[in-house]
Amino acid sequence: MPRTGRRPGNQDTREAILTAARTAFAERGFDGASIRQIATSAGVDPALVHHYFGPKDQLFLATMEAPMDPGQILPQVFEPGLDGVGERLVTAFLTVWDSPAGTAAAALLRSAMQHEWSARMLREFLVTQILRRATRALQLDPAEAPRRAALVASQMIGMAMMRYILKLEPLASMPPDDVVRNIAPTIQRYLADPLP
Amino acid sequence: MPRTGRRPGNQDTREAILTAARTAFAERGFDGASIRQIATSAGVDPALVHHYFGPKDQLFLATMEAPMDPGQILPQVFEPGLDGVGERLVTAFLTVWDSPAGTAAAALLRSAMQHEWSARMLREFLVTQILRRATRALQLDPAEAPRRAALVASQMIGMAMMRYILKLEPLASMPPDDVVRNIAPTIQRYLADPLP
Repeated sequence: MPRTGRRPGNQDTREAILTAARTAFAERGFDGASIRQIATSAGVDPALVHHYFGPKDQLFLATMEAPMDPGQILPQVFEPGLDGVGERLVTAFLTVWDSPAGTAAAALLRSAMQHEWSARMLREFLVTQILRRATRALQLDPAEAPRRAALVASQMIGMAMMRYILKLEPLASMPPDDVVRNIAPTIQRYLADPLP
Repeated sequence: MPRTGRRPGNQDTREAILTAARTAFAERGFDGASIRQIATSAGVDPALVHHYFGPKDQLFLATMEAPMDPGQILPQVFEPGLDGVGERLVTAFLTVWDSPAGTAAAALLRSAMQHEWSARMLREFLVTQILRRATRALQLDPAEAPRRAALVASQMIGMAMMRYILKLEPLASMPPDDVVRNIAPTIQRYLADPLP
């Protein structure tokens, strides 16, 4: 067998870390899981976990095979503030789902509907990777932020379901700009208007 | 084996009709499928199809194991007109999903995400059983009705996903009245406000 740059031993180690991390995140959630304890159950040094995957949120994204890194996308969505945030968020969301990463996103959503551990990972992803960034950058009232986030998620995930999975027309083949025009006002209200 | 009221022969006939109907609706859609052709492929008389299942929309609901009959629920939602329709629709939707029928509805949604034939059945259900009733009763502009319906469906299905399947808080355990207060204004706008 020809030698390649990838050493099987390292691949096994990566897999062992991912398996341990998947269990830890699913059982304890993002905040409850620790790199140290994941390293212990994978039988490796904590430094090696960091060497392969970086900080905890990167390990979490690798574990759930996230199709994109919210840390790369969300700053430009949230940091300009509440004004126009609905339009920026829907645009960014469509950019991911209309790209090849959309296939992985759809697979993730399908899986979350079938398996409770996968649903929990998606909830943790929404809360720790998206909601926290929104709360901080948009200076949302922490007492209201979870409700605003759940409402936003209900409209965004529902739109993704209809457009990419159930393929209901005219949403399925609507140009992205038209989707933004139709959906963004709802997202804007959920994030910025007084809650009922 | 003790005799019961249900005769096995009839049960086989029912199953043969349902199997033929499932294929016909999935391949040709609700409008394209005919009772006559379903009867032929099940090897029975058309009158027998009607005897067991009633008119075509009842057969369709039986085929997809629909947890409720929109014909029973939607008249009181749509017939009072556009004023307050958002609140009535979300209330009716929650009444179904919060009842034992909700389990069947969730199963239907899960199945539609896994299998294209099942997704097609759900699209046909939305378009022929719900959208048509809304268009007629609310006198929606037929050129706009499909877009309004797709937007409403995106918010309603997304809410069901978050509340009943992914169980994202605070939506998962929010009292129905609060869900109505938060979601109904969006549905109202999608149905009654000028489209962008």
